[in-house]
Amino acid sequence: MIFCPSAISCIFSPKLDQDPLKSGSLGVGFTIDKGVFAKPSSGIKFNGKKIDFPTVEYVVRENKMNGVELLTDLPLGCGFGLSGASALATAFLSEKPAVELFDLAHVAEVVNLTGLGTVTTQTFSGLVIRKSASCPSRAVIERYVWNYELDFISLGSISTSEVLTTRKNISEIGKKWLNEFIKKVSLDNLFRCSKGFAEETGLIEPVRDIIEAVESSGGMASMAMLGKTVFAYKGFEALKEFGKPFKAKIECSGVRKIESFSNTV
Amino acid sequence: MIFCPSAISCIFSPKLDQDPLKSGSLGVGFTIDKGVFAKPSSGIKFNGKKIDFPTVEYVVRENKMNGVELLTDLPLGCGFGLSGASALATAFLSEKPAVELFDLAHVAEVVNLTGLGTVTTQTFSGLVIRKSASCPSRAVIERYVWNYELDFISLGSISTSEVLTTRKNISEIGKKWLNEFIKKVSLDNLFRCSKGFAEETGLIEPVRDIIEAVESSGGMASMAMLGKTVFAYKGFEALKEFGKPFKAKIECSGVRKIESFSNTV
Repeated sequence: MIFCPSAISCIFSPKLDQDPLKSGSLGVGFTIDKGVFAKPSSGIKFNGKKIDFPTVEYVVRENKMNGVELLTDLPLGCGFGLSGASALATAFLSEKPAVELFDLAHVAEVVNLTGLGTVTTQTFSGLVIRKSASCPSRAVIERYVWNYELDFISLGSISTSEVLTTRKNISEIGKKWLNEFIKKVSLDNLFRCSKGFAEETGLIEPVRDIIEAVESSGGMASMAMLGKTVFAYKGFEALKEFGKPFKAKIECSGVRKIESFSNTV
Repeated sequence: MIFCPSAISCIFSPKLDQDPLKSGSLGVGFTIDKGVFAKPSSGIKFNGKKIDFPTVEYVVRENKMNGVELLTDLPLGCGFGLSGASALATAFLSEKPAVELFDLAHVAEVVNLTGLGTVTTQTFSGLVIRKSASCPSRAVIERYVWNYELDFISLGSISTSEVLTTRKNISEIGKKWLNEFIKKVSLDNLFRCSKGFAEETGLIEPVRDIIEAVESSGGMASMAMLGKTVFAYKGFEALKEFGKPFKAKIECSGVRKIESFSNTV
């Protein structure tokens, strides 16, 4: 069985090219210790149900697999990078050079517009700064091992492909806040720059009140790109007003083989 | 500053090719939470002293650097994969695609015969099974995240290049014990297969008495390839009879950027 951590994208600046290997996003993201477990199966099953999952189908087809069973306790489409994690976990069920598998999962995401930088973040894991917009094998990155525990709440999905194809100014705003973050790589500055990006792009609106509630209670919060999902530091109590928050740690150990399924690893 | 974990090679089956990217070793190894810190400098300094370090010089030259200062509390040449860690940590001071930096460090090791599989183990980190003998970008691997704390003692060095160029039967013996380990990936079996490999190649002799002392005391032990170095599980007390052992954890977070030097991370 393979485990791949999910990833929160904090800041991104998309770049689409004819060649999916040259497509991706600059930006900042981090992996957490919840994610996706994958084991061989026939057809594509997600938490026990057959689903239509083109990003994973792409990997299954390319690697000539019969199918895959995916297990997770995180929701799809809500900014946890689950399509990337599912693609990567599925890819690693095949025996090929690891770097080819990283790139394959990236291409699967790009051609389906389900993610641009997620697989690169998951490839390297931890707090990852993507300094080039490309597949993992060509990615210029900086990575840090961080040990923070964060709080999360998710209230639903936002269509990544819709945002990527309709918003025109995200790329410039993303570059600006990426550069602001690089000036000082710290948790405080991650929240400041991530929120600045969400504000300036206008993406923040569906979760603005949640972020402000965390801040009023003395914590820090921002928005996961792309979902109606908030990640926070010292925000658990404030998040409770809006639903059912959960905790997860930033994790830095990436995709791996494991013996059995559990919620975290 | 960059930190790269050191790596213990347990079983290896070398393959040398005209092309260093196609050279490497099959085998099993793991990374630990002690390693090498690197920061930019002029010339090559190792723990404050200028040294002749061809593997690192290769990286410095290829990346057009002025030099590097390396800091570690582990000894060179004793089976901790420090030349690989030094090459990787040095490489990551440059801003290039990460996978190019992995391959560069690998080539630096191969052309100087200071290591064959170490950089691939360090690239992926954790407990790494190398199923192909090649540079990191082409390596077929399996990796596991293990959390064991182990005990180590080092009594000196063995020349990697001498073993690689004079021993003829290591390759077959390495394949045999690699296959034995793959049948059951567990700590017990790692010690069994690693020791089987050391026995059958005859490499065990300089540390046989230490390994037997640990076993007599109820622990498990084997030999780090290549050094007069023993790694053990529940062996600390027995190792004390032979010198000054230390503890380190298997670590799975790989090469990273960090803010400051410390003994472990």
